[in-house]
Amino acid sequence: MSNHSEESSAKPASRGRAAPRPAFDPERRAAILRAAVTVFARKGFHGATIAEIAREAGLASGTLYNHFQNKQTILLALLDTMNDTGQREADFAAADHETLDSFTQRYVRQRLETFTQAAGDALGVILAELLTNAELRAAYARQLLGPTTVLGERVFARWASEGRIRPERVELVVRAFAAQVLGLLVLRQLGDDTLTARWDEIPDVVSDLMLHGIEGDTP
Amino acid sequence: MSNHSEESSAKPASRGRAAPRPAFDPERRAAILRAAVTVFARKGFHGATIAEIAREAGLASGTLYNHFQNKQTILLALLDTMNDTGQREADFAAADHETLDSFTQRYVRQRLETFTQAAGDALGVILAELLTNAELRAAYARQLLGPTTVLGERVFARWASEGRIRPERVELVVRAFAAQVLGLLVLRQLGDDTLTARWDEIPDVVSDLMLHGIEGDTP
Repeated sequence: MSNHSEESSAKPASRGRAAPRPAFDPERRAAILRAAVTVFARKGFHGATIAEIAREAGLASGTLYNHFQNKQTILLALLDTMNDTGQREADFAAADHETLDSFTQRYVRQRLETFTQAAGDALGVILAELLTNAELRAAYARQLLGPTTVLGERVFARWASEGRIRPERVELVVRAFAAQVLGLLVLRQLGDDTLTARWDEIPDVVSDLMLHGIEGDTP
Repeated sequence: MSNHSEESSAKPASRGRAAPRPAFDPERRAAILRAAVTVFARKGFHGATIAEIAREAGLASGTLYNHFQNKQTILLALLDTMNDTGQREADFAAADHETLDSFTQRYVRQRLETFTQAAGDALGVILAELLTNAELRAAYARQLLGPTTVLGERVFARWASEGRIRPERVELVVRAFAAQVLGLLVLRQLGDDTLTARWDEIPDVVSDLMLHGIEGDTP
């Protein structure tokens, strides 16, 4: 798969181990992403180098190139993890078997956790790059944001037809929900101490707001 | 006020006009901020120079330095305009004379408009710098975000005591509301076409959600 000489010389097989690692390896890919988060948090996106990410992951740069073409590809893979793209359909399907209340609370919690776990201290760096890099943003919109938004619209439309939610402008309601989660992450990143200190209460508060609004039972 | 020689030589008074402009001039300040938005959008924050911002505003660099120490001070002033810090108390006071519905809708619309008008195409650049510049972020949290959040908490607590909103965890509800507005701006900036195309419907949809939730009248 690779023509990089570093990779060839670094291959465990050439040092006589039993099972040669394939050029592409999901565990290595995950290790590279974790290393990238660490280096991005330390150096920023532009200050980070492939060599440093590889070193942080304990790999030769050539091995890293088996998995990712460049820093931008790494960032897009991180965004994919943060976006949980592949998992989203199953997440929504689970809502059919529980109340909208318990689903929404669990869903918001999971989205917030996935974001922060995948991005860690590099969340600000990743969002900043996304906001200022038009090429990356276009790839993100096309490959990640677009598909999950379409899925969200479909699910919300079905819930509306089943009477679980109000049927008004579901395509905008989906976006308001996505924006609520995203905005909380950004606001926390901007340094709101209360939000940070009481972060574990947020899924409960926010899902209650989403479902019932601030007026609640008052007339 | 200034010792910059460029400023002295550029003073209209020295060219014999009737009314000498003061060193500090609110109109010039606004012109500098508008110029900064243009240059930030064109060059990014780090690519922009004070000289280019001054040129864009039609001023000598020395004149600009009468108003702002450096690029970071300009960015903080832009954030102040986006945040509408000084206007917020009067905005909230207006809610006492109208329904929560009409207030919320007007308020969300105004917040979204102030942000986009003040920041224009530089919104992504400004948010990105805020997310990655710890010093700027600390100043923003202390000078702008903090005071408006405290004000929001006070107003929400009063509304809760008057029975206009539910009394639960108002300090987190305030943050969820701020995050909703912020998240919509970020999501739009990330390139969601539907959000951009139907942006004028958003205040209506979002304030309805905030007040009544997605379940609305359904059981």
